[in-house]
Amino acid sequence: MYCYLNGRFVKAASAKIPIQDRGFRYGDGLFETIAVYHSRPYQWDLHIARLKKGLEALEIPADISGVREAILKLLDKNKLTEATLRIAISRGSGSQGYLPIGCACPTILIEAHERVTPPANPSALWLSTYEKPSPQALPIACKTAQGLNATLVRMEASHHGCLDGLQLNKDGHITEASSANLFWKIGNVLYTPDEACGLLPGTTRAALMRLSPYEVKTGPYGLEILERADAVIVCNTQWQAMPIVELKPKGWKWPKSVELAQEMRTWLAKDIAHAASSA
Amino acid sequence: MYCYLNGRFVKAASAKIPIQDRGFRYGDGLFETIAVYHSRPYQWDLHIARLKKGLEALEIPADISGVREAILKLLDKNKLTEATLRIAISRGSGSQGYLPIGCACPTILIEAHERVTPPANPSALWLSTYEKPSPQALPIACKTAQGLNATLVRMEASHHGCLDGLQLNKDGHITEASSANLFWKIGNVLYTPDEACGLLPGTTRAALMRLSPYEVKTGPYGLEILERADAVIVCNTQWQAMPIVELKPKGWKWPKSVELAQEMRTWLAKDIAHAASSA
Repeated sequence: MYCYLNGRFVKAASAKIPIQDRGFRYGDGLFETIAVYHSRPYQWDLHIARLKKGLEALEIPADISGVREAILKLLDKNKLTEATLRIAISRGSGSQGYLPIGCACPTILIEAHERVTPPANPSALWLSTYEKPSPQALPIACKTAQGLNATLVRMEASHHGCLDGLQLNKDGHITEASSANLFWKIGNVLYTPDEACGLLPGTTRAALMRLSPYEVKTGPYGLEILERADAVIVCNTQWQAMPIVELKPKGWKWPKSVELAQEMRTWLAKDIAHAASSA
Repeated sequence: MYCYLNGRFVKAASAKIPIQDRGFRYGDGLFETIAVYHSRPYQWDLHIARLKKGLEALEIPADISGVREAILKLLDKNKLTEATLRIAISRGSGSQGYLPIGCACPTILIEAHERVTPPANPSALWLSTYEKPSPQALPIACKTAQGLNATLVRMEASHHGCLDGLQLNKDGHITEASSANLFWKIGNVLYTPDEACGLLPGTTRAALMRLSPYEVKTGPYGLEILERADAVIVCNTQWQAMPIVELKPKGWKWPKSVELAQEMRTWLAKDIAHAASSA
Protein backbone atom coordinates (compact mmCIF):
# COMPACT_ATOMS: atom_id res chain seq x y z
CA MET A 1 0.00 0.00 0.00
CA TYR A 2 1.08 3.53 -0.72
CA CYS A 3 0.48 6.55 1.44
CA TYR A 4 0.74 10.25 0.63
CA LEU A 5 3.36 12.09 2.70
CA ASN A 6 4.07 15.78 2.12
CA GLY A 7 3.46 15.75 -1.60
CA ARG A 8 4.87 12.31 -2.41
CA PHE A 9 3.37 8.86 -2.75
CA VAL A 10 5.53 6.42 -0.82
CA LYS A 11 5.27 2.84 0.44
CA ALA A 12 3.36 3.05 3.72
CA ALA A 13 5.36 0.22 5.29
CA SER A 14 8.58 2.21 5.07
CA ALA A 15 7.26 5.79 5.33
CA LYS A 16 8.81 7.76 8.14
CA ILE A 17 8.72 11.17 9.79
CA PRO A 18 11.52 13.06 11.56
CA ILE A 19 11.85 12.55 15.32
CA GLN A 20 11.53 16.35 15.64
CA ASP A 21 7.96 16.30 14.31
CA ARG A 22 5.68 17.83 16.91
CA GLY A 23 3.11 15.20 16.09
CA PHE A 24 5.51 12.70 17.63
CA ARG A 25 6.69 14.97 20.46
CA TYR A 26 3.30 16.17 21.63
CA GLY A 27 0.43 14.85 19.52
CA ASP A 28 0.40 18.41 18.20
CA GLY A 29 -1.93 17.85 15.26
CA LEU A 30 -5.28 16.69 13.95
CA PHE A 31 -6.74 13.83 11.97
CA GLU A 32 -9.85 12.72 10.14
CA THR A 33 -11.06 9.21 9.39
CA ILE A 34 -13.20 9.08 6.27
CA ALA A 35 -15.13 6.20 4.75
CA VAL A 36 -14.92 5.71 1.00
CA TYR A 37 -17.82 3.97 -0.73
CA HIS A 38 -17.70 3.37 -4.50
CA SER A 39 -14.52 5.51 -4.74
CA ARG A 40 -16.30 8.43 -3.11
CA PRO A 41 -15.38 9.90 0.32
CA TYR A 42 -18.66 9.89 2.24
CA GLN A 43 -19.67 13.21 3.87
CA TRP A 44 -16.51 14.85 2.58
CA ASP A 45 -17.71 18.40 3.27
CA LEU A 46 -18.33 17.69 6.96
CA HIS A 47 -14.89 16.14 7.41
CA ILE A 48 -13.09 18.97 5.66
CA ALA A 49 -15.05 21.64 7.53
CA ARG A 50 -14.07 20.04 10.86
CA LEU A 51 -10.45 19.71 9.75
CA LYS A 52 -10.33 23.38 8.75
CA LYS A 53 -11.88 24.40 12.07
CA GLY A 54 -9.22 22.36 13.86
CA LEU A 55 -6.36 23.90 11.86
CA GLU A 56 -7.66 27.34 12.84
CA ALA A 57 -8.04 26.41 16.52
CA LEU A 58 -4.49 25.03 16.60
CA GLU A 59 -3.08 27.80 14.37
CA ILE A 60 -1.51 25.28 12.00
CA PRO A 61 -1.05 26.95 8.61
CA ALA A 62 -1.45 23.81 6.48
CA ASP A 63 -2.47 24.17 2.85
CA ILE A 64 -5.07 21.45 2.29
CA SER A 65 -6.18 22.58 -1.15
CA GLY A 66 -4.50 19.55 -2.77
CA VAL A 67 -5.85 16.94 -0.37
CA ARG A 68 -8.90 15.90 -2.37
CA GLU A 69 -6.84 15.31 -5.52
CA ALA A 70 -4.17 13.47 -3.54
CA ILE A 71 -6.84 11.17 -2.08
CA LEU A 72 -8.26 10.27 -5.47
CA LYS A 73 -4.74 9.48 -6.77
CA LEU A 74 -3.97 7.46 -3.64
CA LEU A 75 -7.11 5.36 -3.99
CA ASP A 76 -6.22 4.77 -7.61
CA LYS A 77 -2.59 3.83 -6.84
CA ASN A 78 -3.79 1.40 -4.15
CA LYS A 79 -6.60 0.06 -6.39
CA LEU A 80 -9.17 0.74 -3.68
CA THR A 81 -12.81 1.64 -4.21
CA GLU A 82 -14.08 0.68 -0.72
CA ALA A 83 -11.69 2.15 1.80
CA THR A 84 -11.01 4.00 5.00
CA LEU A 85 -8.90 7.12 4.67
CA ARG A 86 -6.93 8.68 7.48
CA ILE A 87 -5.74 12.24 6.98
CA ALA A 88 -3.26 13.37 9.64
CA ILE A 89 -1.84 16.87 9.84
CA SER A 90 0.76 17.85 12.42
CA ARG A 91 2.46 21.15 13.08
CA GLY A 92 5.62 19.63 11.59
CA SER A 93 9.18 19.81 12.84
CA GLY A 94 10.15 22.64 15.11
CA SER A 95 11.11 23.65 18.60
CA GLN A 96 11.53 21.07 21.32
CA GLY A 97 9.62 23.09 23.92
CA TYR A 98 5.86 23.46 23.93
CA LEU A 99 5.99 26.89 22.27
CA PRO A 100 6.13 26.23 18.53
CA ILE A 101 9.01 28.11 16.92
CA GLY A 102 10.15 27.65 13.35
CA CYS A 103 7.44 25.17 12.36
CA ALA A 104 7.30 26.39 8.79
CA CYS A 105 6.10 23.20 7.22
CA PRO A 106 3.17 21.18 8.59
CA THR A 107 3.24 17.44 7.96
CA ILE A 108 0.41 16.07 5.81
CA LEU A 109 -0.03 12.31 5.78
CA ILE A 110 -2.84 10.41 4.07
CA GLU A 111 -3.27 6.68 4.52
CA ALA A 112 -5.77 4.47 2.74
CA HIS A 113 -6.79 1.02 3.91
CA GLU A 114 -9.42 -1.46 2.86
CA ARG A 115 -12.57 -0.75 4.80
CA VAL A 116 -12.94 -3.05 7.78
CA THR A 117 -16.32 -4.69 8.38
CA PRO A 118 -17.75 -3.57 11.74
CA PRO A 119 -17.84 -6.24 14.50
CA ALA A 120 -20.72 -8.62 13.76
CA ASN A 121 -21.81 -9.20 17.36
CA PRO A 122 -23.58 -6.70 19.57
CA SER A 123 -21.31 -5.33 22.26
CA ALA A 124 -21.20 -4.02 25.77
CA LEU A 125 -19.87 -0.65 26.99
CA TRP A 126 -17.86 -0.18 30.17
CA LEU A 127 -18.73 2.79 32.38
CA SER A 128 -15.32 4.44 32.14
CA THR A 129 -13.41 5.74 35.14
CA TYR A 130 -11.83 8.33 32.80
CA GLU A 131 -13.69 11.62 32.52
CA LYS A 132 -14.03 13.15 29.04
CA PRO A 133 -11.42 15.92 28.52
CA SER A 134 -12.98 19.30 29.11
CA PRO A 135 -13.72 21.68 26.22
CA GLN A 136 -12.24 24.37 28.50
CA ALA A 137 -8.88 22.58 28.29
CA LEU A 138 -8.82 21.50 24.63
CA PRO A 139 -10.73 22.18 21.40
CA ILE A 140 -12.34 18.75 21.63
CA ALA A 141 -14.92 19.50 18.95
CA CYS A 142 -11.99 18.98 16.55
CA LYS A 143 -10.32 15.63 16.06
CA THR A 144 -7.00 16.46 17.70
CA ALA A 145 -4.18 13.94 17.91
CA GLN A 146 -4.47 13.97 21.72
CA GLY A 147 -5.49 10.31 21.77
CA LEU A 148 -4.27 9.16 25.18
CA ASN A 149 -7.55 9.64 27.03
CA ALA A 150 -9.34 7.60 24.35
CA THR A 151 -6.57 4.98 24.38
CA LEU A 152 -6.84 4.51 28.14
CA VAL A 153 -10.63 4.29 27.91
CA ARG A 154 -10.45 1.61 25.20
CA MET A 155 -7.82 -0.34 27.13
CA GLU A 156 -9.89 -0.26 30.32
CA ALA A 157 -13.00 -1.36 28.42
CA SER A 158 -11.07 -4.13 26.70
CA HIS A 159 -9.79 -5.42 30.06
CA HIS A 160 -13.45 -5.87 31.00
CA GLY A 161 -14.43 -7.53 27.73
CA CYS A 162 -16.20 -4.43 26.40
CA LEU A 163 -15.99 -2.74 23.02
CA ASP A 164 -15.50 0.78 24.38
CA GLY A 165 -16.08 2.93 27.44
CA LEU A 166 -18.98 5.27 28.12
CA GLN A 167 -17.58 8.61 29.29
CA LEU A 168 -19.16 11.28 31.45
CA ASN A 169 -18.09 14.91 31.67
CA LYS A 170 -17.09 16.66 34.90
CA ASP A 171 -20.74 17.38 35.68
CA GLY A 172 -21.67 13.72 35.37
CA HIS A 173 -23.46 14.17 32.06
CA ILE A 174 -23.22 11.55 29.33
CA THR A 175 -20.86 12.54 26.50
CA GLU A 176 -19.99 9.62 24.21
CA ALA A 177 -17.74 6.59 23.95
CA SER A 178 -14.02 7.17 23.40
CA SER A 179 -14.27 6.31 19.71
CA ALA A 180 -17.91 6.88 18.86
CA ASN A 181 -20.97 9.00 19.53
CA LEU A 182 -23.95 7.62 21.39
CA PHE A 183 -27.69 7.45 20.67
CA TRP A 184 -30.45 5.84 22.67
CA LYS A 185 -34.14 5.36 22.02
CA ILE A 186 -37.04 5.63 24.45
CA GLY A 187 -40.41 4.99 22.85
CA ASN A 188 -40.34 6.77 19.50
CA VAL A 189 -37.74 9.37 20.44
CA LEU A 190 -34.00 9.21 19.74
CA TYR A 191 -31.67 10.95 22.20
CA THR A 192 -28.06 12.04 21.94
CA PRO A 193 -26.02 14.41 24.17
CA ASP A 194 -25.66 17.92 22.79
CA GLU A 195 -22.29 19.40 21.82
CA ALA A 196 -22.18 21.62 24.91
CA CYS A 197 -21.65 18.45 26.98
CA GLY A 198 -18.17 18.19 25.42
CA LEU A 199 -17.97 15.63 22.65
CA LEU A 200 -16.74 15.22 19.13
CA PRO A 201 -19.62 16.13 16.80
CA GLY A 202 -19.17 13.08 14.60
CA THR A 203 -20.08 12.93 10.95
CA THR A 204 -22.03 9.67 11.39
CA ARG A 205 -23.89 11.30 14.31
CA ALA A 206 -24.74 14.16 11.93
CA ALA A 207 -25.93 11.71 9.26
CA LEU A 208 -28.15 9.80 11.71
CA MET A 209 -29.68 13.04 13.01
CA ARG A 210 -30.34 14.12 9.44
CA LEU A 211 -31.79 10.76 8.34
CA SER A 212 -33.78 9.76 11.43
CA PRO A 213 -37.54 9.36 10.93
CA TYR A 214 -37.85 9.65 14.72
CA GLU A 215 -37.77 12.90 16.63
CA VAL A 216 -34.19 13.52 17.86
CA LYS A 217 -33.74 15.24 21.23
CA THR A 218 -30.38 16.61 22.34
CA GLY A 219 -29.37 17.99 25.69
CA PRO A 220 -27.39 17.31 28.84
CA TYR A 221 -28.45 13.95 30.27
CA GLY A 222 -27.43 12.23 33.47
CA LEU A 223 -26.42 8.59 33.31
CA GLU A 224 -29.69 7.38 34.89
CA ILE A 225 -31.71 8.04 31.73
CA LEU A 226 -29.96 5.07 30.12
CA GLU A 227 -31.51 2.71 32.67
CA ARG A 228 -34.87 3.20 31.00
CA ALA A 229 -33.64 3.21 27.39
CA ASP A 230 -35.09 0.62 25.01
CA ALA A 231 -32.08 0.59 22.68
CA VAL A 232 -28.55 2.05 22.62
CA ILE A 233 -26.09 2.35 19.74
CA VAL A 234 -22.65 3.90 19.21
CA CYS A 235 -21.73 5.28 15.82
CA ASN A 236 -18.68 6.36 13.90
CA THR A 237 -17.32 6.27 10.37
CA GLN A 238 -15.94 2.76 10.68
CA TRP A 239 -18.56 1.06 12.85
CA GLN A 240 -21.53 2.89 11.35
CA ALA A 241 -24.18 2.03 13.99
CA MET A 242 -23.09 -0.63 16.51
CA PRO A 243 -25.69 -2.14 18.82
CA ILE A 244 -24.87 -1.89 22.54
CA VAL A 245 -26.76 -4.45 24.57
CA GLU A 246 -25.32 -3.83 28.05
CA LEU A 247 -23.65 -1.22 30.21
CA LYS A 248 -21.13 -2.87 32.53
CA PRO A 249 -20.68 -2.92 35.50
CA LYS A 250 -24.17 -1.44 35.97
CA GLY A 251 -25.80 -4.44 34.33
CA TRP A 252 -28.34 -2.32 32.44
CA LYS A 253 -29.48 -4.20 29.33
CA TRP A 254 -30.99 -2.98 26.08
CA PRO A 255 -32.44 -5.89 24.09
CA LYS A 256 -33.80 -3.74 21.24
CA SER A 257 -30.40 -2.31 20.26
CA VAL A 258 -29.73 -4.82 17.47
CA GLU A 259 -32.98 -3.87 15.78
CA LEU A 260 -32.24 -0.13 16.04
CA ALA A 261 -28.71 -0.54 14.69
CA GLN A 262 -29.99 -2.53 11.71
CA GLU A 263 -32.55 0.13 11.02
CA MET A 264 -29.91 2.87 11.16
CA ARG A 265 -27.59 0.96 8.81
CA THR A 266 -30.47 0.90 6.33
CA TRP A 267 -30.79 4.68 6.55
CA LEU A 268 -27.04 5.04 5.99
CA ALA A 269 -26.96 2.56 3.09
CA LYS A 270 -29.68 4.51 1.29
CA ASP A 271 -27.88 7.79 1.89
CA ILE A 272 -24.58 6.36 0.62
CA ALA A 273 -26.29 5.00 -2.49
CA HIS A 274 -27.99 8.35 -3.05
CA ALA A 275 -24.70 10.24 -2.65
CA ALA A 276 -22.99 7.89 -5.15
CA SER A 277 -25.75 8.24 -7.73
CA SER A 278 -25.83 12.04 -7.46
CA ALA A 279 -22.04 12.36 -7.77
CA MET B 1 24.61 15.61 17.19
CA TYR B 2 23.70 11.99 17.71
CA CYS B 3 20.58 10.67 19.33
CA TYR B 4 19.77 7.23 20.70
CA LEU B 5 16.89 5.53 18.92
CA ASN B 6 15.83 2.00 19.83
CA GLY B 7 19.28 0.73 20.67
CA ARG B 8 21.27 2.61 18.03
CA PHE B 9 23.15 5.89 17.99
CA VAL B 10 22.15 7.80 14.87
CA LYS B 11 22.48 11.35 13.55
CA ALA B 12 19.63 13.32 15.11
CA ALA B 13 19.13 15.47 12.02
CA SER B 14 18.18 12.44 9.93
CA ALA B 15 16.62 10.17 12.59
CA LYS B 16 13.10 9.07 11.77
CA ILE B 17 10.25 7.02 13.13
CA PRO B 18 7.57 5.09 11.24
CA ILE B 19 4.32 6.91 10.44
CA GLN B 20 2.53 4.08 12.28
CA ASP B 21 4.15 5.02 15.60
CA ARG B 22 1.40 5.78 18.10
CA GLY B 23 3.50 8.63 19.42
CA PHE B 24 2.85 10.33 16.08
CA ARG B 25 -0.75 9.17 15.73
CA TYR B 26 -1.95 10.06 19.21
CA GLY B 27 0.82 11.44 21.43
CA ASP B 28 0.58 7.99 23.04
CA GLY B 29 3.72 8.17 25.15
CA LEU B 30 5.75 9.93 27.81
CA PHE B 31 8.85 12.04 28.10
CA GLU B 32 11.31 13.45 30.61
CA THR B 33 13.56 16.49 30.30
CA ILE B 34 16.67 16.17 32.44
CA ALA B 35 19.44 18.68 33.11
CA VAL B 36 23.01 17.43 33.00
CA TYR B 37 25.61 19.31 35.06
CA HIS B 38 29.23 18.19 35.02
CA SER B 39 28.26 15.05 33.01
CA ARG B 40 25.78 14.07 35.70
CA PRO B 41 21.98 13.92 35.20
CA TYR B 42 20.58 16.03 38.05
CA GLN B 43 17.88 14.42 40.21
CA TRP B 44 18.01 11.27 38.12
CA ASP B 45 16.09 9.15 40.61
CA LEU B 46 13.09 11.52 40.60
CA HIS B 47 12.95 11.58 36.80
CA ILE B 48 13.19 7.82 36.47
CA ALA B 49 10.61 7.22 39.22
CA ARG B 50 8.15 9.49 37.42
CA LEU B 51 8.90 7.84 34.07
CA LYS B 52 8.29 4.38 35.56
CA LYS B 53 5.03 5.54 37.12
CA GLY B 54 3.96 6.88 33.73
CA LEU B 55 4.83 3.64 31.92
CA GLU B 56 2.68 1.77 34.45
CA ALA B 57 -0.24 4.20 34.13
CA LEU B 58 -0.14 3.92 30.34
CA GLU B 59 0.61 0.17 30.35
CA ILE B 60 3.61 0.60 28.08
CA PRO B 61 5.95 -2.37 28.61
CA ALA B 62 9.21 -0.53 27.83
CA ASP B 63 12.46 -1.91 29.20
CA ILE B 64 14.36 1.13 30.48
CA SER B 65 17.15 -0.76 32.21
CA GLY B 66 19.65 0.35 29.57
CA VAL B 67 18.69 4.03 29.51
CA ARG B 68 21.27 5.29 32.01
CA GLU B 69 24.12 3.63 30.14
CA ALA B 70 22.79 4.87 26.80
CA ILE B 71 22.70 8.42 28.17
CA LEU B 72 26.30 8.33 29.32
CA LYS B 73 27.40 7.01 25.92
CA LEU B 74 25.32 9.63 24.14
CA LEU B 75 26.83 12.49 26.16
CA ASP B 76 30.26 11.10 25.38
CA LYS B 77 29.54 10.73 21.65
CA ASN B 78 28.22 14.30 21.52
CA LYS B 79 31.11 15.60 23.69
CA LEU B 80 28.64 17.20 26.11
CA THR B 81 29.15 17.73 29.82
CA GLU B 82 26.52 20.47 30.31
CA ALA B 83 23.38 19.35 28.54
CA THR B 84 19.65 18.90 28.43
CA LEU B 85 18.44 15.37 27.85
CA ARG B 86 15.06 14.44 26.49
CA ILE B 87 13.92 10.85 26.91
CA ALA B 88 10.78 10.04 24.93
CA ILE B 89 9.03 6.68 25.07
CA SER B 90 6.01 5.92 22.93
CA ARG B 91 3.87 2.80 22.68
CA GLY B 92 5.50 2.14 19.31
CA SER B 93 3.91 1.07 16.05
CA GLY B 94 0.60 -0.69 16.16
CA SER B 95 -3.08 -0.47 15.44
CA GLN B 96 -4.55 2.59 13.79
CA GLY B 97 -7.52 2.79 16.16
CA TYR B 98 -7.27 4.03 19.73
CA LEU B 99 -7.18 0.49 21.16
CA PRO B 100 -3.52 -0.58 21.04
CA ILE B 101 -3.15 -3.94 19.32
CA GLY B 102 0.16 -5.51 18.37
CA CYS B 103 2.36 -2.79 19.88
CA ALA B 104 5.11 -5.21 20.80
CA CYS B 105 7.96 -2.78 20.69
CA PRO B 106 7.86 0.63 22.40
CA THR B 107 9.94 3.39 20.84
CA ILE B 108 12.76 4.76 23.01
CA LEU B 109 14.37 8.00 21.85
CA ILE B 110 17.00 9.97 23.75
CA GLU B 111 18.15 13.37 22.56
CA ALA B 112 20.96 15.46 24.07
CA HIS B 113 21.38 19.16 23.46
CA GLU B 114 23.63 21.82 24.91
CA ARG B 115 21.92 23.31 27.92
CA VAL B 116 20.19 26.58 27.08
CA THR B 117 20.70 29.53 29.43
CA PRO B 118 17.36 30.60 30.92
CA PRO B 119 15.94 33.95 29.69
CA ALA B 120 17.89 36.75 31.39
CA ASN B 121 15.00 39.15 31.86
CA PRO B 122 12.16 38.75 34.33
CA SER B 123 8.92 37.82 32.64
CA ALA B 124 5.17 38.15 32.80
CA LEU B 125 2.57 35.39 32.89
CA TRP B 126 -0.74 35.51 31.02
CA LEU B 127 -3.85 34.35 32.86
CA SER B 128 -4.67 31.51 30.47
CA THR B 129 -8.13 30.92 29.05
CA TYR B 130 -7.24 27.21 28.85
CA GLU B 131 -8.13 25.17 31.92
CA LYS B 132 -5.55 22.61 33.13
CA PRO B 133 -6.49 19.10 31.95
CA SER B 134 -8.23 17.20 34.71
CA PRO B 135 -6.49 14.37 36.60
CA GLN B 136 -9.81 12.52 36.19
CA ALA B 137 -9.26 12.54 32.42
CA LEU B 138 -5.50 11.88 32.20
CA PRO B 139 -2.64 10.76 34.46
CA ILE B 140 -1.28 14.31 34.48
CA ALA B 141 1.12 13.62 37.36
CA CYS B 142 3.19 11.87 34.64
CA LYS B 143 4.81 13.72 31.78
CA THR B 144 2.64 12.37 28.99
CA ALA B 145 3.17 13.37 25.36
CA GLN B 146 -0.27 15.04 25.36
CA GLY B 147 1.27 18.46 24.77
CA LEU B 148 -1.48 20.30 22.92
CA ASN B 149 -3.00 22.02 25.95
CA ALA B 150 0.44 23.31 26.94
CA THR B 151 1.18 24.33 23.35
CA LEU B 152 -2.02 26.37 23.12
CA VAL B 153 -1.30 28.00 26.48
CA ARG B 154 2.23 28.98 25.41
CA MET B 155 0.99 30.32 22.06
CA GLU B 156 -1.72 32.40 23.74
CA ALA B 157 0.80 33.77 26.25
CA SER B 158 3.27 34.54 23.48
CA HIS B 159 0.60 36.45 21.53
CA HIS B 160 0.33 38.71 24.60
CA GLY B 161 4.10 39.09 25.03
CA CYS B 162 4.23 36.75 28.03
CA LEU B 163 6.58 33.86 28.81
CA ASP B 164 3.86 31.36 29.71
CA GLY B 165 0.27 31.12 30.89
CA LEU B 166 -0.98 30.66 34.44
CA GLN B 167 -3.55 27.86 34.46
CA LEU B 168 -6.43 27.24 36.83
CA ASN B 169 -8.21 23.93 37.34
CA LYS B 170 -11.96 23.42 36.90
CA ASP B 171 -12.57 24.64 40.46
CA GLY B 172 -10.69 27.88 39.81
CA HIS B 173 -7.68 26.86 41.87
CA ILE B 174 -4.16 27.78 40.80
CA THR B 175 -2.26 24.84 39.28
CA GLU B 176 0.91 25.90 37.44
CA ALA B 177 2.14 27.37 34.18
CA SER B 178 2.00 25.15 31.08
CA SER B 179 5.73 24.41 31.23
CA ALA B 180 6.66 25.07 34.86
CA ASN B 181 5.52 24.88 38.45
CA LEU B 182 4.72 27.99 40.45
CA PHE B 183 5.86 29.34 43.83
CA TRP B 184 4.97 32.60 45.52
CA LYS B 185 6.18 34.21 48.71
CA ILE B 186 4.19 36.18 51.26
CA GLY B 187 6.26 37.41 54.17
CA ASN B 188 8.56 34.53 55.09
CA VAL B 189 6.38 31.76 53.75
CA LEU B 190 6.67 30.07 50.36
CA TYR B 191 3.48 28.73 48.77
CA THR B 192 2.87 26.26 45.96
CA PRO B 193 -0.33 24.44 44.93
CA ASP B 194 -0.56 20.85 46.13
CA GLU B 195 -0.64 17.89 43.77
CA ALA B 196 -4.36 17.32 44.33
CA CYS B 197 -5.00 20.54 42.39
CA GLY B 198 -3.88 18.69 39.26
CA LEU B 199 -0.34 19.54 38.24
CA LEU B 200 2.90 17.93 37.21
CA PRO B 201 4.95 17.38 40.38
CA GLY B 202 8.13 18.77 38.87
CA THR B 203 11.62 17.76 39.92
CA THR B 204 12.75 21.39 40.31
CA ARG B 205 9.65 22.02 42.45
CA ALA B 206 10.73 19.06 44.58
CA ALA B 207 14.27 20.43 44.87
CA LEU B 208 13.08 23.90 45.91
CA MET B 209 10.74 22.42 48.52
CA ARG B 210 13.62 20.31 49.85
CA LEU B 211 16.14 23.19 49.87
CA SER B 212 13.96 26.09 51.01
CA PRO B 213 14.99 27.74 54.30
CA TYR B 214 11.47 29.19 54.41
CA GLU B 215 8.39 27.32 55.53
CA VAL B 216 6.64 25.86 52.46
CA LYS B 217 2.84 25.68 52.50
CA THR B 218 0.91 23.65 49.93
CA GLY B 219 -2.81 23.52 49.32
CA PRO B 220 -5.61 24.57 47.02
CA TYR B 221 -5.42 28.32 46.48
CA GLY B 222 -7.73 30.65 44.61
CA LEU B 223 -6.21 33.14 42.19
CA GLU B 224 -6.80 36.10 44.53
CA ILE B 225 -3.99 35.07 46.88
CA LEU B 226 -1.51 36.12 44.19
CA GLU B 227 -2.70 39.73 44.40
CA ARG B 228 -1.01 39.99 47.79
CA ALA B 229 2.14 37.98 46.97
CA ASP B 230 5.52 39.70 47.39
CA ALA B 231 7.30 37.54 44.82
CA VAL B 232 6.38 34.90 42.22
CA ILE B 233 8.59 32.46 40.32
CA VAL B 234 8.09 29.59 37.89
CA CYS B 235 10.49 26.67 37.88
CA ASN B 236 11.46 23.77 35.70
CA THR B 237 14.54 21.84 34.71
CA GLN B 238 15.54 24.25 31.99
CA TRP B 239 14.54 27.60 33.50
CA GLN B 240 15.51 26.68 37.08
CA ALA B 241 13.75 29.57 38.90
CA MET B 242 12.42 32.33 36.63
CA PRO B 243 11.22 35.59 38.19
CA ILE B 244 7.66 36.60 37.26
CA VAL B 245 7.06 40.29 37.76
CA GLU B 246 3.50 40.62 36.46
CA LEU B 247 0.28 38.71 35.84
CA LYS B 248 -1.43 40.00 32.71
CA PRO B 249 -4.13 41.11 32.04
CA LYS B 250 -4.80 41.49 35.80
CA GLY B 251 -1.90 43.92 36.15
CA TRP B 252 -0.78 42.44 39.47
CA LYS B 253 2.93 43.14 39.96
CA TRP B 254 5.57 41.44 42.08
CA PRO B 255 8.71 43.56 42.37
CA LYS B 256 10.56 41.17 44.70
CA SER B 257 10.49 38.23 42.28
CA VAL B 258 13.97 38.84 40.86
CA GLU B 259 15.47 38.67 44.32
CA LEU B 260 13.64 35.44 45.18
CA ALA B 261 14.64 33.79 41.89
CA GLN B 262 18.29 34.68 42.46
CA GLU B 263 18.11 33.25 45.96
CA MET B 264 16.59 30.02 44.66
CA ARG B 265 19.24 29.66 41.95
CA THR B 266 21.82 29.84 44.73
CA TRP B 267 20.12 26.97 46.57
CA LEU B 268 20.09 24.94 43.36
CA ALA B 269 23.71 25.73 42.48
CA LYS B 270 24.84 24.49 45.89
CA ASP B 271 22.77 21.35 45.56
CA ILE B 272 24.13 20.66 42.08
CA ALA B 273 27.70 21.15 43.31
CA HIS B 274 27.01 18.88 46.28
CA ALA B 275 25.53 16.18 44.02
CA ALA B 276 28.55 16.38 41.71
CA SER B 277 31.07 16.13 44.56
CA SER B 278 29.28 13.18 46.18
CA ALA B 279 29.00 11.24 42.90
